[in-house]
Amino acid sequence: MNLDPQWVVGFTDGEGCFHVGIARHADMTLGVQVLPELTIVQHKRDVALLHAIKQFFNCGVVRHNHGNRMCWRVRRLEHLKDRIIPFFDKHVLKSRKRQDYLKFRRVVLHMVDGRHLTAEGLGEIIRLSKQMNRGRESE
Amino acid sequence: MNLDPQWVVGFTDGEGCFHVGIARHADMTLGVQVLPELTIVQHKRDVALLHAIKQFFNCGVVRHNHGNRMCWRVRRLEHLKDRIIPFFDKHVLKSRKRQDYLKFRRVVLHMVDGRHLTAEGLGEIIRLSKQMNRGRESE
Repeated sequence: MNLDPQWVVGFTDGEGCFHVGIARHADMTLGVQVLPELTIVQHKRDVALLHAIKQFFNCGVVRHNHGNRMCWRVRRLEHLKDRIIPFFDKHVLKSRKRQDYLKFRRVVLHMVDGRHLTAEGLGEIIRLSKQMNRGRESE
Repeated sequence: MNLDPQWVVGFTDGEGCFHVGIARHADMTLGVQVLPELTIVQHKRDVALLHAIKQFFNCGVVRHNHGNRMCWRVRRLEHLKDRIIPFFDKHVLKSRKRQDYLKFRRVVLHMVDGRHLTAEGLGEIIRLSKQMNRGRESE
């Protein structure tokens, strides 16, 4: 299945989720793990679409989500930096989800620079993560 | 806001709903009203996007849906026939929602031909409407 970049942007505006997970993790430098991920969840009937998106970006994994749902998910930092961010910089999201993307982008680039390993950088990442998705709506 | 046709297809694959409502209605020829509609529901923060879609197709209305949600909705038969169907015939949906679209299309064209005013035509329309959306999943 061949996907047009604008189709991918429209579908992501509808179904994509840019998320930054923050979890306590004793093994990490500051006791906290930062997990940025882009996910698209679909009913299993459209799993072919998730595989087409995976192929389009040439990264991520297609996994079972819950119940009848599957997801495509990108977590690897270098793939977020080299494949996801350049795409969404060039092909601008049209929904307010773009606000999430821009914060997500800052988090990923901070992590590429290792700033999540400093208390100050981590503080900013946590602040950004709280302003995304549902946090954004209650601002 | 300028929308690319492929963006509109991608967003509809994610967020669009092709639906055929069937309601009892004493004033109608066979006591039943057939109501095909295309809707896209969004959080009110993205109402500008719904207006851009309305402008793109040059039809439909943007209305309050429920809670914080707004919707763009097309119900007028001639707009479904002359603006929505030609677009989605040309720009093919990539998700399984295309199956709903094809049934929706048949219902609209039956109605344009007045077939919903015959018992046989109405029977087929009701059969098609039951195979759409959630009905499709349980087939």
